[in-house]
Amino acid sequence: LADNFADRLLKAIRSKQTPTCIGIDPVYNRLPAEIAEQRDMNDEMDAESALDATLEFCRRIIRIVAPYVPVVKINSAYFERYYWEGVEGYYELVQEAAERDMIVIGDCKRADIGHSAEMYARAHLADPDFSNLDDFVGPDAVTVNPYFGLDGVKPFIDIARNDGKGIFVLVRTSNESGATIQDLAGADGMRFCEAVARLVAEWARDEGLVGSAGYSCVGAVVGAKDRETTMKLRAMMPQSIFLVPGYGAQGAGATDVAQCFKSDGTGALVTASRSVIYAYEDTKYLEMYASEWEKCVEQACKDFVADLAKVVTVA
Amino acid sequence: LADNFADRLLKAIRSKQTPTCIGIDPVYNRLPAEIAEQRDMNDEMDAESALDATLEFCRRIIRIVAPYVPVVKINSAYFERYYWEGVEGYYELVQEAAERDMIVIGDCKRADIGHSAEMYARAHLADPDFSNLDDFVGPDAVTVNPYFGLDGVKPFIDIARNDGKGIFVLVRTSNESGATIQDLAGADGMRFCEAVARLVAEWARDEGLVGSAGYSCVGAVVGAKDRETTMKLRAMMPQSIFLVPGYGAQGAGATDVAQCFKSDGTGALVTASRSVIYAYEDTKYLEMYASEWEKCVEQACKDFVADLAKVVTVA
Repeated sequence: LADNFADRLLKAIRSKQTPTCIGIDPVYNRLPAEIAEQRDMNDEMDAESALDATLEFCRRIIRIVAPYVPVVKINSAYFERYYWEGVEGYYELVQEAAERDMIVIGDCKRADIGHSAEMYARAHLADPDFSNLDDFVGPDAVTVNPYFGLDGVKPFIDIARNDGKGIFVLVRTSNESGATIQDLAGADGMRFCEAVARLVAEWARDEGLVGSAGYSCVGAVVGAKDRETTMKLRAMMPQSIFLVPGYGAQGAGATDVAQCFKSDGTGALVTASRSVIYAYEDTKYLEMYASEWEKCVEQACKDFVADLAKVVTVA
Repeated sequence: LADNFADRLLKAIRSKQTPTCIGIDPVYNRLPAEIAEQRDMNDEMDAESALDATLEFCRRIIRIVAPYVPVVKINSAYFERYYWEGVEGYYELVQEAAERDMIVIGDCKRADIGHSAEMYARAHLADPDFSNLDDFVGPDAVTVNPYFGLDGVKPFIDIARNDGKGIFVLVRTSNESGATIQDLAGADGMRFCEAVARLVAEWARDEGLVGSAGYSCVGAVVGAKDRETTMKLRAMMPQSIFLVPGYGAQGAGATDVAQCFKSDGTGALVTASRSVIYAYEDTKYLEMYASEWEKCVEQACKDFVADLAKVVTVA
């Protein structure tokens, strides 16, 4: 039997001594000049050229951050944008990160009903069951959307249980308009995101999902917006690890995300994306390393880890 | 300026005289023997073989139903399951259906925030902006998930407005566990799906979205579960065309979906998937056509159209 995902994740966090994750969401027109000006990568209007540049950037990002952080989150949208070749590139990056012993989260936010959800789960979470793809691994975990209720996530949960994989259910997202849905008041006094949290807590404690550390392979995406809600959600989903987006570019800082953790320093994984992968656009890093973009990214990654260490200590 | 999607859809419905759509969600082990037993298509464990069989089946389904129904809905999950080659096949089917003058709905149920949502919208709804893909069209419309609020759907709406495309926002899904989320009672007495419907109605009436027939390119997915709710949702979203799943295999019949239409016979598009595309498994059709699977599908498609014509008349 495969090791429980939560146990694997906690082990990876301990080994790097930081509960952090770098989010990869590459946009062509923000790529470093060194890459985007290469002869076969300098045409944004040619899908192959733009994709090649994008993948080169992502591979180098993965190599830069791998020594410092235990987890990388790859957002599928930025690769689907390049059609099927982009999708192939997405899976190549999953392999690249897995080969560097990182835990890989496929940020694909999928959900559907019945058989369709099963197909998404096989495509995005399972290791391939095809003979011609048998040296190939799926991501360790994926993000899923709760709108369909349990039907939509059950096939993902089944794979997570059997294959040592994980899911993070969207509970509270970091974007502003998320509130128009997720903060709607319920008749029972709970906001809608709290009702979703209650369901996630129920799903998370199902048989075979909770690892030896008491955490489930069913986690939750919780944007650190206001502390009160974060604390409430933390208490409502005691067995779920929180995947916390919004650090850095989206405005959340270390003290904002601190409430996502339990008092023992476990229970959350904090993601920074743009503030790290585009650090070479930031005057702070430009002044230190000028056009050496990889050094900027490395430093921003180390700063992110150090910043979070001020509020959370990994036991 | 491109014609409004709702106007285009209504025109297509009028031209075929039926507000119906065939949903394509192919599973290898249900394919007709004639296809699955072909030498290079008979290995379910080989992604290429299984995909080739699946695509051959889908192409033939599209050709069979094209004379009878105005719209085809292709569920992305069943193609993503075959990784990047499956995704290429998905887009090929979009072209195939578009060439037969069908309206194509990409059933991809995507959503994300900000830039990520924009990438999904470009990948799944827009016609490609790449020079090497310029003879290639995106679907006419896609399904989107509302969980992120307006941020998650805005990029899709912008493309819909500018390019004559459409979206169908998930409001009430046909699966059972959808109720645990969508039927949650709100403090204002509205259920959650009604709160989403209110938002959709607001989004739908935005500038530049409503066509000459009074319908918006922002539609809604509304499963015909109970009539009361359907009528309520119909009244709440007067400018949205409903995409109604669940006909046939999922249990809804013509009288169940009738409330999705306005009294003038407009306002909804009813989808049948498994009951039509797998009609050759149904003894009713087997008795008529034995192993001639294409005739079974054709007859089931005609029966679906005739069945719906009993409760809705296209003006």
